[in-house]
Amino acid sequence: MVSKVNFALFGFGNMGLAHMKNILTSPRATVKWVVRNKIEEAKKFVQDYNLAARCTTPDSLEGLYNDPEVNAVLICSPTSTHEPLIRDSLLAGKAVFCEKPITDAIDSTAACYDLAEKQKKPLFNAMHRRFEPNFRGVREKIMKKELGNLRLIKLTSRDLAPPPISYIKTSGGIIYDSTIHDLDMSLWLAGSEPESVYVSASAFDPSIAGCDDYDQVLVTIKFKNGVVSSVENGRVAPYGYDQRLEVLCDKGMISVDNQTTGLITEHLAGVTSAPRIADHFTSRYPQAYAAELEHFLDVLQGKVELQVKKEDTLNAMRLVRACQKSIASKGPVTIETEV
Amino acid sequence: MVSKVNFALFGFGNMGLAHMKNILTSPRATVKWVVRNKIEEAKKFVQDYNLAARCTTPDSLEGLYNDPEVNAVLICSPTSTHEPLIRDSLLAGKAVFCEKPITDAIDSTAACYDLAEKQKKPLFNAMHRRFEPNFRGVREKIMKKELGNLRLIKLTSRDLAPPPISYIKTSGGIIYDSTIHDLDMSLWLAGSEPESVYVSASAFDPSIAGCDDYDQVLVTIKFKNGVVSSVENGRVAPYGYDQRLEVLCDKGMISVDNQTTGLITEHLAGVTSAPRIADHFTSRYPQAYAAELEHFLDVLQGKVELQVKKEDTLNAMRLVRACQKSIASKGPVTIETEV
Amino acid sequence: MVSKVNFALFGFGNMGLAHMKNILTSPRATVKWVVRNKIEEAKKFVQDYNLAARCTTPDSLEGLYNDPEVNAVLICSPTSTHEPLIRDSLLAGKAVFCEKPITDAIDSTAACYDLAEKQKKPLFNAMHRRFEPNFRGVREKIMKKELGNLRLIKLTSRDLAPPPISYIKTSGGIIYDSTIHDLDMSLWLAGSEPESVYVSASAFDPSIAGCDDYDQVLVTIKFKNGVVSSVENGRVAPYGYDQRLEVLCDKGMISVDNQTTGLITEHLAGVTSAPRIADHFTSRYPQAYAAELEHFLDVLQGKVELQVKKEDTLNAMRLVRACQKSIASKGPVTIETEV
Amino acid sequence: MVSKVNFALFGFGNMGLAHMKNILTSPRATVKWVVRNKIEEAKKFVQDYNLAARCTTPDSLEGLYNDPEVNAVLICSPTSTHEPLIRDSLLAGKAVFCEKPITDAIDSTAACYDLAEKQKKPLFNAMHRRFEPNFRGVREKIMKKELGNLRLIKLTSRDLAPPPISYIKTSGGIIYDSTIHDLDMSLWLAGSEPESVYVSASAFDPSIAGCDDYDQVLVTIKFKNGVVSSVENGRVAPYGYDQRLEVLCDKGMISVDNQTTGLITEHLAGVTSAPRIADHFTSRYPQAYAAELEHFLDVLQGKVELQVKKEDTLNAMRLVRACQKSIASKGPVTIETEV
Repeated sequence: MVSKVNFALFGFGNMGLAHMKNILTSPRATVKWVVRNKIEEAKKFVQDYNLAARCTTPDSLEGLYNDPEVNAVLICSPTSTHEPLIRDSLLAGKAVFCEKPITDAIDSTAACYDLAEKQKKPLFNAMHRRFEPNFRGVREKIMKKELGNLRLIKLTSRDLAPPPISYIKTSGGIIYDSTIHDLDMSLWLAGSEPESVYVSASAFDPSIAGCDDYDQVLVTIKFKNGVVSSVENGRVAPYGYDQRLEVLCDKGMISVDNQTTGLITEHLAGVTSAPRIADHFTSRYPQAYAAELEHFLDVLQGKVELQVKKEDTLNAMRLVRACQKSIASKGPVTIETEV
Repeated sequence: MVSKVNFALFGFGNMGLAHMKNILTSPRATVKWVVRNKIEEAKKFVQDYNLAARCTTPDSLEGLYNDPEVNAVLICSPTSTHEPLIRDSLLAGKAVFCEKPITDAIDSTAACYDLAEKQKKPLFNAMHRRFEPNFRGVREKIMKKELGNLRLIKLTSRDLAPPPISYIKTSGGIIYDSTIHDLDMSLWLAGSEPESVYVSASAFDPSIAGCDDYDQVLVTIKFKNGVVSSVENGRVAPYGYDQRLEVLCDKGMISVDNQTTGLITEHLAGVTSAPRIADHFTSRYPQAYAAELEHFLDVLQGKVELQVKKEDTLNAMRLVRACQKSIASKGPVTIETEV
Repeated sequence: MVSKVNFALFGFGNMGLAHMKNILTSPRATVKWVVRNKIEEAKKFVQDYNLAARCTTPDSLEGLYNDPEVNAVLICSPTSTHEPLIRDSLLAGKAVFCEKPITDAIDSTAACYDLAEKQKKPLFNAMHRRFEPNFRGVREKIMKKELGNLRLIKLTSRDLAPPPISYIKTSGGIIYDSTIHDLDMSLWLAGSEPESVYVSASAFDPSIAGCDDYDQVLVTIKFKNGVVSSVENGRVAPYGYDQRLEVLCDKGMISVDNQTTGLITEHLAGVTSAPRIADHFTSRYPQAYAAELEHFLDVLQGKVELQVKKEDTLNAMRLVRACQKSIASKGPVTIETEV
Repeated sequence: MVSKVNFALFGFGNMGLAHMKNILTSPRATVKWVVRNKIEEAKKFVQDYNLAARCTTPDSLEGLYNDPEVNAVLICSPTSTHEPLIRDSLLAGKAVFCEKPITDAIDSTAACYDLAEKQKKPLFNAMHRRFEPNFRGVREKIMKKELGNLRLIKLTSRDLAPPPISYIKTSGGIIYDSTIHDLDMSLWLAGSEPESVYVSASAFDPSIAGCDDYDQVLVTIKFKNGVVSSVENGRVAPYGYDQRLEVLCDKGMISVDNQTTGLITEHLAGVTSAPRIADHFTSRYPQAYAAELEHFLDVLQGKVELQVKKEDTLNAMRLVRACQKSIASKGPVTIETEV
C-alpha cells in the first residue's frame, strides 16, 4: 500500500490549481513534479507554494517518467494532449487521474483503458459530478429505494456564457463538450441501460449556429427499466452557473438546488433580494473535486475499486453519439449498447 | 352596462363551491338560481348560505332560462352536460362561464363558439391558470422582454394521486384530461405558433396501462419563433400538488415555485422540516379562481374583452391531438395550424 | 344548540369587511343587522352583498337589541364605542365578538367580563394571533414537549409605517396599542406567570417622541418557569408587515416565518429577487380571522369553551402596565399578578 | 515589503489546522516552524504535509525566535500560554496573529498592545467574525446608509452543546468566553459608543448553574446614537451551530441567515426535509478564517492598516465587564468608556 501518493502535475488552468490545493492540504498526497510549457512558470509555481518538487516542460518528460517516487500523474492539460500523456504515463507505470475526456474518440478511449488494464494501473476519468456529495446522496436514496421506485430524472445545466467561438469550433459540439456530464449523470442515476433518446437542439446565437453547433439542448432519454430522464443543457444563463437535479419517485421527490454565494437577504420597499447562484464551476463543485481526489487516493491505497470504469466512460460516449444522430435525423434514436 | 351580474349555478363539486363563495363576497355578483339533481339539496344550499335564490333541477330549466334577471350561467357540472347547457343558455341569451372543457370534440367546441358569436354573448372557457397572478406576472415580463428574449419554458404539473379508474376510462386520456392545461400555458406564454411536438409517455401503474392510458408524460414543443417548451405532467406525487413554471430568457430566469401550506420550519438534531407543498387545486389556485370570476364580470360590464378566445381553445385542442399522434407514432409530429 | 348564528355588525373598516365575508361564506352564520353611522351606507352595503338583513344607525338600536333572531353582535367600531355596545348587547342577551381591546382600562374590562358571566353570554376578545394556525401549531408542540423544554420565545412585529399622529395621540402608547399582541402571545406560549419585565424603548421619529410615545421597543420578559421572551415591536418596516415567531427548546428550534405575497423568484445577472413579505394584516392573518370566527361559532353551538378568558385579557393588560413602568423607571419591573 | 510571510505555528486544534491549510495554499505565506508539545508530533505533521519546516517544542524556542526568516507567529495554543508567547514573539521582532483572547485581563491585554506598538509589530486579535464576508457586506451597507439609518441589531449565536464542565470552570463565564464575539460584532456594526447594557441570564443546566455560570443570555445594548442591539447567546442548540445577524434600518432590513450543509430538499407525503444548518464553526466560518489570514498578510505587506485595533479589543472587554455587572445587579448598567 502506498502511504503517500506523489503526483506529477500537467496543466494549470482553474482545474489544475484546484487539484493542486487539494493535494497540498492532504496528508496522503504531495506534488513531486510540475510540468509547464515554460520552465520559468513551473519554477515560479514551485516557489509560490513552497513545494519540494522538480520542474520540467512537456518535451522533456523522461526524468519524470523514470522517477520511481512518482506514483501518479494528474492531467489537466488540453484535450489534444491527453492520449499521448495517458499512454506514456501508463507505460511508465504511473496511475492516471485525467480530466474529462480521456480522448475524443470511442476507439482510442477504449484503447487507453485496455492499456491501463494491461499495465494494472488505474485510469481515472474524473467525472466530478459523480463525487458531488448531494448528487451522491440522491443516488444512494434511489439505490435504497427510500422513496420507492424511480420514475423521472430531471437535470438542468446552464453555463453563464458561451465559450469563445475559437473554442466552440474545436469543442466537438455542445453534446460532446458539455451535455456529456448530464448524460453520464443520467446513466449513473437511472440504474438501467438507455433504450432511446430524442434531442431538441436550438442555436439562438447566430455565431454558434454558424459553427453548426447549438446553444440550448433538451434531451429525453428512455431507459429499459421505464425511467425517463429529461436533460436541459444550455450555454447562456447570465444569472449564474445553474446546476440542478430533481428525481421523482413513486413515494416522493428530491431536488438538489443551486449553490448560492452568500447568506444575505435584503428587504426593501418593493424588492427582496436573495442570495445569488454561484457563478463558476470552481465555486459550485469544490467538494466534488476534493472527493474525487480522495477517491483516487483510496484506489491507489487499495481501499476501494475505481468507480468510473471503462464501460461508464464508453456508455456516455455512445449516448453522445446517439444524441448527435437524433439531432441530425430530427427524430428519436434507438441506443446501440455494443460498440 | 350590467351593475350586478345574477348567476344561475350548475354543479356543486369543489369548483362549484369555490366559485359560489367568490360570487357571494363580490359586490358585483349574486346567485339567483341553484340547480341540483335533487331539489332538496338545492334548497338546503340556499338555506345554508342564506341566499335570495330560487331552486330547480336539470330537467326543469324553463323558469331559469326565462328569468330576465339571470345574466349568466356558471357551469361546473360533468363534462357530458356542457354542450347542451351551453347551447340552451346561449339561446336563452345568457352569458356562459364554463369549466374546462367546452366539449370533448373540436367540431362541437367550435360550434358552441359560433353560436356564442351569433348570440353576441360571451362563452368563457375557464382556463384558470391564465389568471393565476404569478403566471400572469411571468407572462407580462416575457411580453415586455424584461429579461430579453424568451428561449425556454418548463412546466411541471403533478397530481397527488391518480383519479379512480372509472374516471380514467372516460377521461379522454391524460393529455386531454390534464396535460391540456400545460399545453395551453405553453401556447399562452410562447408568443408564437407551435411547429412540432414530441411526447414521451409512460404508464407506471398497470391499471392505468390497462386503460391504454399513461400516468407520466414529457412533452417537447417547438415553436416557430424558436422557443421550446418542456412540459412534464404526471398523476403521482404523494408529497403535494406540484405546479411549477420556469422560463429562461437570454438575460435571466424566472421561476414560479409551489404554494406551501404553512410558515413553520422546525430544526431538530438531524432533520430540518420545511413547509409542505399545498396538496389540492383549491389551496393552490384560489387567487386564480377569484381573478377569472372578476375577469368574467369585467367582460359582462363591458370593461375588457374576453381573454380566452375561440382560437385559444381550439389551438389547445389541436395541440392535444398532435400529442396523441406523437404517442401513437413514437416520433415527433408537425402541428396542423388549420382545423 | 344554535344551528345558525345571526349577527348584528358594528363597524366597517378592514376588519369589519373581513369578518363579514367570513360570515357570508359560512353555512353556520348569517348577517341580520348592519349598523352604520349613515343609514344610506348601511343600505348600500346590504344591497351590494345581497344580504337578507336590516339596517340601522348607532342611535337607534332598540329594534336590533329586541330582535330575538339576533344571537350575537360583532364589534369592529372605534375603541371608545366598545364599552357601551358590549354592556347593552350583553344586557339584551346577545353574545359578543369584540375586536381588541375590550375597553381602555383594567377595571372597566373586568366589569364587562363580570356582566358577561352574570348574563351567561360569551364575551370574546378577538386576539386573532392565538388563532393563526402556525402559531397554534407551535404552541401545541410546546405543550406536548415535542422539542423538549421551552427556553426562549422571540417575537418580531413590525408595522410598515406609523399610524397618523392624530391616532398616536389617542392610542394609549405603542405598548398598549400594539405590543400588547406580542405580550399576549408570550403569555399564551410560555405556560407560566411572568416574573419581571424590562423594556428598552426608542423614539426615532421626532413627531412620535413629541407625543411622549415610542416607535421601537424591545421587551425582555422572564417567566417563573425560567422561560424568557424577547419581544421586538416597531412602527417602521417599509419592506413588509413583518411578523415572526421563534421558539428555542432544549431539543430544537421552531420558527414561523413571514407570509410572502407571491411565488416568483427572478434571477438576473447581479441580482436575485425573491417573493416579498405580505404588507398588511389582512394579507397576513386571513386564516386567523376565519379561525377565530369558527371558534366563536363553536362556542355558541356549545362545542368548546371560550379560549380567550377574562384572566387572559387582564393578564395582558397587567403586563402592559408593567412595561410602561419599566420605561418610566428605566429598569426591570416585577410583575404584580393581582389586580 | 515582505514578499513571502514565513510563519511559526503554535497550537494544533481545529483552528491551528484550518489556519495551516490556508497558509499552505497561499502563494504569499509559508510555514517555517512547527511547535508542538511532543517533538514527534511536530515531525509527523511536517512530514504529512510535506513542509519545508523545522520542528521544536514550547520549552525550546530560541532557535525559532532567532530565525531571521520567521516574520510572524500564529498562536492557537491554550489561552494561558498567550501572554508569554505574544511578549516573547514581539520582543524577537515577530508579528503576532493570535486567536481570541489576547489575555484574560484588560490590563495585561493593554500591555501587550503597548509592547507591540513599541516594537512596531502588528498584534492581531483574530476576531474572525469581522472578516466573514456576509457580515462585512452588511456593515458596508450600514456605513453607506444604503438602507437609511440603522435602528436595531439582532444577533443570535448558539452552540450545539455546552463544552465540558472542566472547560466551563476555567472559561471566565459565558459572557467572556462566548458572548464577547456578539458584543464585538455589536460594537463593530453600531458605529457608536455603548451607553448602557442590560443582561438577562439563565442557567437551564444545573451543572452549569453549579459553576455560577449561565447557558442562555439575552443582552440589550443601547448605543449613544440611539441604535439598540439585542444579543442572544446560548450553549444548547442540538440542531446546528446557529449564527444569525439581522439589522433593521429605517428603509429596510437585512438578514444573514445560517450556512446550510447541503443542497437537498426531500418531499415525502407528510414531510418536507430541507438542508440542515452547518454544525461547527469550521464549516460556518472557513471564508472568515481565510479572509483574516489574507488581511494579516496585507498588513505585513504594508497594503492596509490593521483592522482590529487596541481600542476594539479593550472596548469589547469593557462591555463584557458591564454585562457581568448587570447580571450581578439584575439591572441595567451604564458603560464606562475609560479604563
